[in-house]
This record gives sequence, C-alpha cells and structure tokens, in this order.
Amino acid sequence: MSDKITILDTTLRDGEQSAGVNFTRADKLEIARMLEAMRIDVIEAGFPAASAAEFANVQAVAKDVRGSAICALARAVPEDIDAATEALKPAAEPRIHIFLNSSDTHLAHQLRKSREDVRALAGAMVQRARTYVADVEFSPMDATRADPDFLAEIVRTAIAAGATTINLPDTVGYVLPHRLHAMILDVRAKVPELGRVCLSFHGQDDLGLSTANTLEAVRAGARQVELTVNGIGERAGNTALEEVVMALRLHGPALGVHVDVDTTKLAELSQLVAARSGMAVAPNKALVGKNAFRHASGIHQDGVLKKRETFEWIDPAMVGNTRGTEIVLGKLSGRAGFLARVRALGVELSKEREEETFARFQALADQRPMVDDAEIRAICREGAHA
Amino acid sequence: MSDKITILDTTLRDGEQSAGVNFTRADKLEIARMLEAMRIDVIEAGFPAASAAEFANVQAVAKDVRGSAICALARAVPEDIDAATEALKPAAEPRIHIFLNSSDTHLAHQLRKSREDVRALAGAMVQRARTYVADVEFSPMDATRADPDFLAEIVRTAIAAGATTINLPDTVGYVLPHRLHAMILDVRAKVPELGRVCLSFHGQDDLGLSTANTLEAVRAGARQVELTVNGIGERAGNTALEEVVMALRLHGPALGVHVDVDTTKLAELSQLVAARSGMAVAPNKALVGKNAFRHASGIHQDGVLKKRETFEWIDPAMVGNTRGTEIVLGKLSGRAGFLARVRALGVELSKEREEETFARFQALADQRPMVDDAEIRAICREGAHA
Repeated sequence: MSDKITILDTTLRDGEQSAGVNFTRADKLEIARMLEAMRIDVIEAGFPAASAAEFANVQAVAKDVRGSAICALARAVPEDIDAATEALKPAAEPRIHIFLNSSDTHLAHQLRKSREDVRALAGAMVQRARTYVADVEFSPMDATRADPDFLAEIVRTAIAAGATTINLPDTVGYVLPHRLHAMILDVRAKVPELGRVCLSFHGQDDLGLSTANTLEAVRAGARQVELTVNGIGERAGNTALEEVVMALRLHGPALGVHVDVDTTKLAELSQLVAARSGMAVAPNKALVGKNAFRHASGIHQDGVLKKRETFEWIDPAMVGNTRGTEIVLGKLSGRAGFLARVRALGVELSKEREEETFARFQALADQRPMVDDAEIRAICREGAHA
Repeated sequence: MSDKITILDTTLRDGEQSAGVNFTRADKLEIARMLEAMRIDVIEAGFPAASAAEFANVQAVAKDVRGSAICALARAVPEDIDAATEALKPAAEPRIHIFLNSSDTHLAHQLRKSREDVRALAGAMVQRARTYVADVEFSPMDATRADPDFLAEIVRTAIAAGATTINLPDTVGYVLPHRLHAMILDVRAKVPELGRVCLSFHGQDDLGLSTANTLEAVRAGARQVELTVNGIGERAGNTALEEVVMALRLHGPALGVHVDVDTTKLAELSQLVAARSGMAVAPNKALVGKNAFRHASGIHQDGVLKKRETFEWIDPAMVGNTRGTEIVLGKLSGRAGFLARVRALGVELSKEREEETFARFQALADQRPMVDDAEIRAICREGAHA
C-alpha cells in the first residue's frame, strides 16, 4: 500500500512574497482554478490580515474553488485568526494555518518572548482556531534552527490543542537533506502523537536544496509538502511544485508514496504563473524551462535520434510540454543531428555531398547561437549550385 | 583534518552544451581568467574534436591560463584523444577527460557494443591518453543507470590503465540523493583501488536535485565535483557552481571538507556568464538571483530590521552581492519596513500621522508590484498637506 502525499500549493501566499509580485484578485482566481483542476489538495490562498484587499482576495478564492481545501495564513494572534476565519467562511473545506517563531534567535530578536510564553501562545491560538474550523495547521517557524527539545515541546502542545497538520518549515533555507532526515526522525521519536496528525515540510531554496529536502522529508515520514509553482517566493523562493510532484510521480513507487496531481498541465501552469507574477523562468529550469527537453550536443542528439531514453528519461508529454523532444542545431551538433534535420526538411543530399555540406554547416554554426531551418535549406542549396 | 574538495568548472564545455549558447574565443578566455582568479582547480575548456574553431578555443585557454589545470573532453576514440592532447600542448597542467557509455541502454542503443568491448576500449583509451599526459579523467557515461557490477568493472579497468580521476556522471538527471550515496559506497566497496585516485561526481539538474546529489556524493567520499556557473548546460543544465561552492563553504566544517574558492566574486561571475551565454538567471535563483537577498513580507522585514540573521543566514557579502540585504516595499510589507524606509529617506513623520500614511501606502501598494522611494516621499508629502 502506497501512502498518498498531500500537496499544499502556496503560490498565492508564500509565492506572492516575492519582491515585485502582486497578484490581482483575477490572477488569484485564475491560478486557483487551474490548481483545482489539477487536483492540488490544498491551496493556500493568502494572508487575510495583511490588508483589506488581501482579505477580499482570499474570500473570493474560498467562494469560487470547491474541489481543493482553501487555506489562509495567520500569525499566532487573535485578530489574524479571526480574519482568516472570516475570509474562509465561504470555503467548502477551510483550513487555518498558524505560524509562530520557534528558534531561539527568532524568540530573542524578533518575538522577544520566552519559550514558555511561546509554547502557551501556540496552544491557545491553535485552540482558538479549532473553535472555528476543523482543519488547523501549525508551523513552528524556523524549525530547522530551533532547539530540538523545544521544537518537540511546541509540536506536542499544538497537537494537544487540536492541530491536524504540523508543518516544519526550513524558513531560511538552512538545512541539508541528511540532517533534515535525522531531525524529522528525532521529532517523531520525541512526539509519538505526530502519528495521529499529518506531518508536513516547507522548504526554502536559499542553497538550491529545497526539492531534495522535501523528498528527504517524505522519506522520513512527512505526508504533506508545501510548494510554489516555479519555486517563486521570498528571497530565493520556495520549493518548486513541478520538481517535487514529478519526482514523486517518477520515484514514488520506489518510495512507497504517490500523488494524485494531473501532471500534464504543469507546463501550462508554469507559464500562467510566470505571466501573472512577472517572474521569468530560466531556460535551464528543470521540467518547465525552455531548454528542459532540448538537446544541443552531437553525442546527445545522436543518442536521442537512435532512442529517446538514452539521454531523456522523462517524457516531455508527462508535464504537458507540447514541443516535445527537440534537437537544436548549433556549434556542438554532430553529423547525426544535422543529417536528420536535412532529411526532415525533405532535402535530398547525396552521400558524396554530405561531407562538404556538413562542413559548411559547422562554419556557419561557429558564428551564431543556433542555425535555423531556413539557413539549413540555404546551406544545402549552396552545395547543389556549386 | 578537513579534506579539500577539487572544483572542476565545466561552464566552457558542458555549460556551452545549452541550446542557443555559443561562446566566442574571447568569451572563453574572459570566463577562464575569472575562474582562475577565483582559484577554481580545474577548468574544462571544451571539446577539441568538435570542430577546428573549438580546437583553437581550447588551445587559446591552455596557453593563457596558468593557475588552474586545463581539461579537454574526448570520446574514447584515438582521434579525439589526439586532438585533446594537441590542443592542451601549451597548458601548464593539462588533463584529458575521456567519457564512454556505461549503461546497458546506452550500450545497446547508442554505442552498439558489448560490455566486454566497452571495458577493453576504456582501458586502451585511458592508456593512450596517459602516454601523452599525467592527468587523465575517465567518466563512465550514464553511471547512475548502469549495472553496478559492470560499473565496478569498467572503473577498475580505467584505474588499472592509469586514470587519475574517476568521475561518475548522472548523465540524465535520474538519481535521488540517498540512492546516489548508496551507489557510491557500493562502487567504493567493490573497487578498493578507488582509494588511490580522485573520485568525482557530475550531476544534471533534470529534477532539480543536482546540488543535493553533489553534496551527497561528497558525503559518500567524492573529492571532486563538476559544476557550471548558473547551472547552465544540456537540457535543464548542470549543477550550479555557486550553490555547491557556498554549501561546501558554509556546511564544510561539519562535513569535514573545505573548498579554496574565492566566493566573493560569485555574483560577478554569474553576471558575466549570463551576459556571454545569453542564458538569463531567474530572480529567485539561489545566491545569485536578483531577489536572493530581498525581503518582501512584513514579518520577514520586521525580523531582518531587528537582526539580519533572523531571516537571512547567508551574508550577501560572501558571494560579492554589493546591494546587500534589501527591504522591498510592496503589498505585503508591514509597518516596520515602511517606517524604516521613511526614516532612511530622512522624512520626519509624527506618531499621529504614521497610521494614515501607512494606510495610503497600503492602498498604493495594492495597485502595483513595488512602491519606490519617490512614491514614498509623495505619500508622506500628501499627508503633510492634508
């Protein structure tokens, strides 16, 4: 029996915490509807206490989207929890997500409260939220830098107060995968009550490790993962939804887990979020970058032309990439890639003319980033007239 | 005693295998000189057998750069090894890097040779290269999908033939960190001779796992890592140099390893490679993206203003980011961030006017991606006239 991994998408909340990103209500609705259509389990729609407009945005998503649970963020203060409750009133499956500093550096320098006060606050605020909704998530912020004993204590308190999901955030993108694994086993051992609730992980990508950290969390027992489309978010961003979902789809059977997401809309979702956020996706971004399924070197092109799986183990159709596997002709392309394109263009080239035509192609390719089909036709014609 | 990790940068070879990237000779020299100045141990300059121009490019780098070893790529065929040898003639520390398919799918569909033929070829070609240069690296291509026993056999043969570095490439970006760890321990157990040479890892980022895989390889005993600036390369690219170098700098002491690289030029190097390759860096790229040290949400801004380390554990100066920690004002910014900026702009705001001025700021911030300093001054003036 394989365990289902719950996917929480926080593009509309933590993803919007990107410098320069501001989703309009229409943007939030459009993205939320697409996430719903792809069977994302939980959509974190925003932070209602932030402003009147943000409150109304979350309310609009809660009213409109019925197929996914809708989550709203709240600090561990009554006003935030009440605002989240109010904004979520129209939701079919409302969830309140409460976060509270947990590391000593956060307690000393940001919150300026004692551990005991923080623990008590966590309990009281989770309890308050549970009087409103059945589904309450609690995040001890900066968990990966917190004292392990205090982390266990605050987690135990939140569960006793009624939290249904405990999320461990790597708030500053600090942790290494193997250390996170050990940390999760440790907190599970210290707090056996975690077996009664859903354990979640939330990574940040400050060292480029958030996807691996998320998978290690799953291996250590997490059953919810928190992600954003294209990995957008505060600083270097969050964990990329497309990477984790595809890794779980492809490697899930070996890990004993599965996801229900419709992956064939990932490319379109990525483009939608890039357009609405204004956050460009790098060409070499895994799975959704322009180059993700493009082959540039002669050796790779030769392999892919013989059998795609030699240099591409992921089928582009799985992420809804409609261009499919591409052979891009340039300086490092070899004979195999060049001649395949010549044939595909319907140009007849005798065996004798292959050599000199390829030499002309190489001379041109050395001068520019790529050689396009019109240029290839011209190269072949040139030879014919010579 | 901490082990030194050898950094091989392959921006000029595997990085150039990006669709649309074509480095000129001047580009290669400019990038190589900067890598040398940063104390990168090995610079893979290109693939001399690819074309006459590429041969001359590698030769130019070999002539010019004296402080780093210069490496040239070769297929396991005599012509390539001879071309690499010739191009490297002017190098102070030349290295020939031979690669050869090792997985069954590559043997059956690309190379169309038997395992025994491949093993014999590996031995013969490494031996040939060693008659020319003292430093020979051998890569069994697609190692992570190869049969473990055959992988051990081909590695053993290459070492016996004189290979000084054995590199295990995850050619199609297939492996998960914990599996790679187990695989490396397995090959080390099967081939004790690996203790006499340098073990290396080369990751591809098809699932966004290459940085984590590289760190796991180091934990499992690899002492060379192969990287490209900004992670450019074939398909979704290679392992990002800036991520691995910084992870090893920051977490190295705990892992018992260190790197000699001057990290304070990483931001400038990233910009240089982005400009010369035409491959844009996403704003949320770890360490070198525009947003890597920008704080957008009120809670994070409040924390950073109280003490930077609460929400930023990496000092931007370490990567040579000259803008430093930034507070970006927008829809999700709170009072703390807004008032700090007002003070920084030298605007006097009485306690009574703070509330209404902040409300005007929020109303404006809801309408746009960011609010700039001129707008903040205007908001404050408006209040004064009211």
